[in-house]
Amino acid sequence: MTERLIGAVEAGGTKFVLAVARESGEVIAETRIATRTPDKCLPEMAAFFRHAAQAHGPIAAFGVASFGPIDIDPASADYGRFTTTPKPGWAGARFHDVLGEFGAPIVVDTDVNGAALGEWAMGAGQGCHTLAYTTVGTGIGTGVVQDGHSLAGFSHFESGHIPVARDPVHDPFPGRCPFHGDCLEGLASGPAIEERWGSSLSKLASPAGPLEIIADYIAQLAASLVLLHMPDRLVFGGGVMKTPGLIDAVRRKAEARLGGYVQAPQLDPGLQRYVMLPGLGDEAGITGAILLGKRGLGGDH
Amino acid sequence: MTERLIGAVEAGGTKFVLAVARESGEVIAETRIATRTPDKCLPEMAAFFRHAAQAHGPIAAFGVASFGPIDIDPASADYGRFTTTPKPGWAGARFHDVLGEFGAPIVVDTDVNGAALGEWAMGAGQGCHTLAYTTVGTGIGTGVVQDGHSLAGFSHFESGHIPVARDPVHDPFPGRCPFHGDCLEGLASGPAIEERWGSSLSKLASPAGPLEIIADYIAQLAASLVLLHMPDRLVFGGGVMKTPGLIDAVRRKAEARLGGYVQAPQLDPGLQRYVMLPGLGDEAGITGAILLGKRGLGGDH
Repeated sequence: MTERLIGAVEAGGTKFVLAVARESGEVIAETRIATRTPDKCLPEMAAFFRHAAQAHGPIAAFGVASFGPIDIDPASADYGRFTTTPKPGWAGARFHDVLGEFGAPIVVDTDVNGAALGEWAMGAGQGCHTLAYTTVGTGIGTGVVQDGHSLAGFSHFESGHIPVARDPVHDPFPGRCPFHGDCLEGLASGPAIEERWGSSLSKLASPAGPLEIIADYIAQLAASLVLLHMPDRLVFGGGVMKTPGLIDAVRRKAEARLGGYVQAPQLDPGLQRYVMLPGLGDEAGITGAILLGKRGLGGDH
Repeated sequence: MTERLIGAVEAGGTKFVLAVARESGEVIAETRIATRTPDKCLPEMAAFFRHAAQAHGPIAAFGVASFGPIDIDPASADYGRFTTTPKPGWAGARFHDVLGEFGAPIVVDTDVNGAALGEWAMGAGQGCHTLAYTTVGTGIGTGVVQDGHSLAGFSHFESGHIPVARDPVHDPFPGRCPFHGDCLEGLASGPAIEERWGSSLSKLASPAGPLEIIADYIAQLAASLVLLHMPDRLVFGGGVMKTPGLIDAVRRKAEARLGGYVQAPQLDPGLQRYVMLPGLGDEAGITGAILLGKRGLGGDH
């Protein structure tokens, strides 16, 4: 019997990764398109899948791991629709409007929930019940997966905007979040680093001080994730996390922030096995999207 | 047919509330005993239920909502056992050891998870999918209930110890948490208020400044709970929350901390229906314990 085909979308702020995969996970077609307004971007996405279907056969389910804010409640009439995003043109756009022509189930979750699912199933989170995946890049966000399903309340989480403690003596930068100023994302996202020091962390001539400052903000999120979710592991991906030495600094700062309060076998001394880089590297998102699509094959939406 | 009887325990740091209730929730016997070491306290608890059983009939299930840290994983061999608590004698004590003689299912959760369940079912959280209940008293803790079940990772949550932003100019108090100094509990718990100002908030001659300071710390937890759980409502109980005006100050500060970033019908302007005092007052915990016991009647542990 031929394996059924899955259409997978990792929708990011700068690019869409599109893939067609077999149920086994084997990718048989893949492309990247630039993120623009949805009237340009979404038809190009649909065209890719139309061509792939002509070449390889019908697509049996779609998995979408997308930037947000987006409605990820399968019971909602607006499931798969972007909500209040300031991204021009995207508010109100809906994946179902353009993928509906294929007549296949469409499973939509956030980009970080998708990456969390990918890491949980096939990356650094294998064997965990509860895994928190955080991206630190243009934005900051966290997805928490428990036994293969992402957690959510009335909406997906927005960890980038948590309050953090900033020491104005060591870090006088007031933050750049238009909503909160010096929330986590306002202080530790890639653009906040660029604005403050005129360069990415990796390219700074004297990165030691800035690296400690950024690591402590990320560590404050790590501590809050532990205390408010008690995940079995924390994975940190995204562009900023590629800075050499940053993951070690986050481990050190997170251990200091936790102060030995949480005693559990999961939190090894030094957090070398607790605070991890993604096992799938930049493939976590599209891997998660394929897994979401696979869930669609089983009848879930 | 006679209703079956539920034994309910709300185990707090200073007192145990013990109740025997019918399935309908009607309480037919209730007492309070002082929390001492478990060798004194737990046999007294068992004796109460023994007498109640003699008077009213056999107890068909127990529900326990307890201080922690305690193992609340029903699949664990140590389910219902206190773990690393610094409370003298309590580490290693287990509810099952003293309630086992009744031969009835024993359902154990934390005190705040129990209160969250009580508020979700019969208090200020009615109609919510996801409810976060926080106590601000001798300690600070949060339970999150989703569709009637408390959320947990490898252990129950410990929201009292999240990092918060302290402005040393307005609040030079370094905090009193033995692990973290100025974490939330180190700054905003009842004992931290007493140590800093020599009085509870309610009894201060000029409470306005202190009230603003404490409200902002609680509001930082409120913001983090929203961003990391997206609950349909936040309930704040415990002794400190009885301070006149505090809940309004928390609403104001939480709205400022969120900065309009999260737009949802749940978060009404002013947060009058989002940030709430407990609907059950001090009865949330024992109500939750009865509901946990009721779950035991259904065969859950």
